[in-house]
Amino acid sequence: MTRFTVWAPKAERVDLVLGEERTALRPALRGGWWTVEVPAAGDGTDYAFSLDGGPPRPDPRSRRQPDGVHGPSRVVDLELFPWTCPQWSGRELPGSVIYELHIGTFTTEGTFDAAIGRLDHLADLGVDFVEVMPVAAYSGRHGWGYDGVGLWAVHEPYGGPDGFRRFIDACHTRGIGVLLDVVYNHLGPSGNYLAEFGPYFTDKHHTPWGAAVNLDDADSDEVRAFLVDNALYWLGEYRLDGLRLDAAHAFVDTRAVHILEELAVAVDELAEGTGRQITLIAESDLNDPRVVTSRADRGHGIHAQWNDDFHHALHSLLTGERQGYYTDFGSIAAFAKTLTNAYFHDGTWSTFRGRTHGRPVDQAIPGYRFVGFLQDHDQIGNRALGDRISATLSPGLLRVGAALLLTAPFTPMLFMGEEWGAATPWQYFTDHPEPELGRAVSEGRRREFGRHGWAAQAIPDPQEPKTMERSRLDWTELDPQHQATGPHRSLLEWYRALIALRRARPELADPGLADVSVDYDEVARWLVVRRGSLRVVVNLADHPQRVPLDRAAGPILIASDDRIDLNDPGAPVMPAESVAVIESA
Amino acid sequence: MTRFTVWAPKAERVDLVLGEERTALRPALRGGWWTVEVPAAGDGTDYAFSLDGGPPRPDPRSRRQPDGVHGPSRVVDLELFPWTCPQWSGRELPGSVIYELHIGTFTTEGTFDAAIGRLDHLADLGVDFVEVMPVAAYSGRHGWGYDGVGLWAVHEPYGGPDGFRRFIDACHTRGIGVLLDVVYNHLGPSGNYLAEFGPYFTDKHHTPWGAAVNLDDADSDEVRAFLVDNALYWLGEYRLDGLRLDAAHAFVDTRAVHILEELAVAVDELAEGTGRQITLIAESDLNDPRVVTSRADRGHGIHAQWNDDFHHALHSLLTGERQGYYTDFGSIAAFAKTLTNAYFHDGTWSTFRGRTHGRPVDQAIPGYRFVGFLQDHDQIGNRALGDRISATLSPGLLRVGAALLLTAPFTPMLFMGEEWGAATPWQYFTDHPEPELGRAVSEGRRREFGRHGWAAQAIPDPQEPKTMERSRLDWTELDPQHQATGPHRSLLEWYRALIALRRARPELADPGLADVSVDYDEVARWLVVRRGSLRVVVNLADHPQRVPLDRAAGPILIASDDRIDLNDPGAPVMPAESVAVIESA
Repeated sequence: MTRFTVWAPKAERVDLVLGEERTALRPALRGGWWTVEVPAAGDGTDYAFSLDGGPPRPDPRSRRQPDGVHGPSRVVDLELFPWTCPQWSGRELPGSVIYELHIGTFTTEGTFDAAIGRLDHLADLGVDFVEVMPVAAYSGRHGWGYDGVGLWAVHEPYGGPDGFRRFIDACHTRGIGVLLDVVYNHLGPSGNYLAEFGPYFTDKHHTPWGAAVNLDDADSDEVRAFLVDNALYWLGEYRLDGLRLDAAHAFVDTRAVHILEELAVAVDELAEGTGRQITLIAESDLNDPRVVTSRADRGHGIHAQWNDDFHHALHSLLTGERQGYYTDFGSIAAFAKTLTNAYFHDGTWSTFRGRTHGRPVDQAIPGYRFVGFLQDHDQIGNRALGDRISATLSPGLLRVGAALLLTAPFTPMLFMGEEWGAATPWQYFTDHPEPELGRAVSEGRRREFGRHGWAAQAIPDPQEPKTMERSRLDWTELDPQHQATGPHRSLLEWYRALIALRRARPELADPGLADVSVDYDEVARWLVVRRGSLRVVVNLADHPQRVPLDRAAGPILIASDDRIDLNDPGAPVMPAESVAVIESA
Repeated sequence: MTRFTVWAPKAERVDLVLGEERTALRPALRGGWWTVEVPAAGDGTDYAFSLDGGPPRPDPRSRRQPDGVHGPSRVVDLELFPWTCPQWSGRELPGSVIYELHIGTFTTEGTFDAAIGRLDHLADLGVDFVEVMPVAAYSGRHGWGYDGVGLWAVHEPYGGPDGFRRFIDACHTRGIGVLLDVVYNHLGPSGNYLAEFGPYFTDKHHTPWGAAVNLDDADSDEVRAFLVDNALYWLGEYRLDGLRLDAAHAFVDTRAVHILEELAVAVDELAEGTGRQITLIAESDLNDPRVVTSRADRGHGIHAQWNDDFHHALHSLLTGERQGYYTDFGSIAAFAKTLTNAYFHDGTWSTFRGRTHGRPVDQAIPGYRFVGFLQDHDQIGNRALGDRISATLSPGLLRVGAALLLTAPFTPMLFMGEEWGAATPWQYFTDHPEPELGRAVSEGRRREFGRHGWAAQAIPDPQEPKTMERSRLDWTELDPQHQATGPHRSLLEWYRALIALRRARPELADPGLADVSVDYDEVARWLVVRRGSLRVVVNLADHPQRVPLDRAAGPILIASDDRIDLNDPGAPVMPAESVAVIESA
């Protein structure tokens, strides 16, 4: 027996479509909802809904779309899955390292099952959480996942609901937690039938992606419930350890209780009720500490947020890039401010925005509430060629970047392949079956970069299958017989050693922003990050130089270069583009 | 010598237009600003700006528009005004009574000078602040003032800058503070040249009035400075005691520092720097306590906000009206909740909005931060016929309404003429010189009320001069020789006595929300508001009834009816539709 329910407040008639058969749903007690029980239906039954005699439409809360986002929904009895890991909850964010990956390109096969085959690599690396880019069902075979429309289903080409659960179970078995990237601020352009069911969107506000999700207009209680229920569904039925809320800054919500707070309250209640550790991470570029401020202090109480400023400060420090949103960054001073204040823009002028931006972070907010990264899917993929930082940066500076990331007071996050400097790019790719939509995306991409001086033919075509294929990780780069294995394996060792050191020496992960300080010389281009009694000593210059320390240097714990001269322990001579973590006394 | 300055960041050339003469401004140090000094110009000089050789336009910060909003601006040397009142600052909001008035209809003449002639009436009444509806220059001769476009000028037909200052000076002389209603969320449809000067508006957001004021898009720092400077200008140069921020809920501002906070910080700094008392009041229907929460508690720190819920609860309690936004109100329970919690909708279902609304007010927030009213310009004027509550309510219930208002923990506000139950209506009137705009307003008004079943010809035409004239107060209603003076003078005495009692017995004005409690019987229709040892005893029923008290009734301090039977001091018999404030022991 299956009970089918759906919210369709404007419909005068709702039918359940089972093959050729249509069965009327009856209005439920809860306003706008419809329901019917079908004794013969159960796990595996395909169905759809018809509104006022219209064509069959997938269930807005469909758990499975076996034939894609336009086809019928399938009943999935979530109780039937044979979970194996007995101890599957408990990973806390403080002190952890996150690894962002995209199922479709993490492996050659692009499936959950293939990804399971690489989990030992992640466990060896020392990863605590994987953050899986969106898996909600979207139109086409491949894409980044931010065009999802079946928010309760799992993209079939990845392996569907069972594949995802096998993957989560396998992660848990290895002690790795799983965070899922969920997109609540907009829906994809194809297969979005929600608006036919009810006022999921509102013209009252608009967003870069069209009409805004209806969070504060009439009937928005059910829309908010749709999102909150969705979060609880993933966390509950899929045993996820947390969610990453995509573009949380794009929620337009004038209510006195913001949707971020509502989500955080619901998730915290689930965690408390079950004794689980659950983490909510928001992507937000508002530089508004309210997002991660506790509710006791009148914040939204989201557990962490992405810290783009840290990325920009670190990226431009290493690369010297100053175009676009890197304009205000690039100096050691900017990096030092970000390291000690979380936001660089905390009420300062943002040239990119043409206005003042942000407000200061209360130093009582722990640094782990800010996710720091040297690379992520956006920062690579939104470049014209999708080139990783390793494609152009010297091996020395690459190690400096990794060291500054993994000794920061923030929660460090790696992007898949970063740990070995993967030679494959990560490009923007789509697979819109609608020719017009596909053309619009391809042309939009060319136009966007054309504005910045790129020739059209230089820009990879998102719709071209090769663009996706190029973006797949090539794990043979780690094979001993690979022509260029050496640099890859050596960088992998560096990441592994840094993560191990971060774990062994808790002062490196200490999230107290007030306790971090940075000595530096902008002109000579060196810096020293003080972390307890440890010193992260960096020479950014292209020549060796003496780097003065506030205390005598003790033993070197880890170094990117073995030519460090410690003869004067108060001012070791660091080789060009090198970093070392040194004990001081 | 006058220095002319203007912000025109996109212009390549800016000219000062003095008669036939054009003088180029030079770029100033501050980005986007232009400046020029003209030795021969001074108080009284007419001028305009021309952008890139275009037509003359009024100064966005024009202090005077002698020939209307489309004409030249006039230099006003604000130092020259002969202020007379030496002690002009010091009125505090706590414990005060506000009186809202509209200069154009407060007197027959519709001028500041004529209004001065009525100030003794207000002083006698016991008013602490007048709140002047917007006086910023707008197109046409008369209107409510919410179509202002010359935000730094004073509407000429009211008496211009000098008239307004004479009025303020005269208020101060009588110990009355002056609050000004300022409109920062939109500009009027005619005479708005701001967009030619710079990006004052943004397409990123829209509002009911079109493109939103640019508070968070590129170049918005200067737009915010325009508003903040405007607030400081009125408060400083006009010696105003505070501002009322119109439709503050309509600000669309995603910045980490909200414009309300920025305004409040600037105003508080002015107050601290000068030792003055300055009050900022926001109109906000968000039911979000953040607005009036102190900045120490991470609120915006606005000093008070209008409390529409209190109006709705009181209005529908007295009238029984339940249409539109009164739907959820009307019960004594709803009134009691509002009286003790400030918001009725504090996370509860709002039928009118079709969604949950608001969040609870921390009981530590004093009640005076909520402005309560039985009537205001909107609540009267937005009715189809602009009829005051006194047009239909019984004299007894009218007195009940006034008593419940003036014994509430909120800051009470009266609307001009309310104190004597003025027989004149207050209708929506405009005077758009552009025929098309005028027609659109007239038709829009008819259409709006047509939807609610009103015949078109029943709706007063806003553009018709008689509509404005009908809305003027008729002070002869208070003349002894007037045919119906009795009821008016008697109601006036009631208001005066209530205000005097509120002042004499501070427990009536006590803003502690936690200390207010209400006993009531929804079916029998009586209620008792407990205020310290005082009891506000109300019989809403149309027949006498016994009203039980928690403590024995002592002497009656004030009563709307002299037939109250105190034989049983634990349960006095109250006449139909009556109220008394009683001492208890």
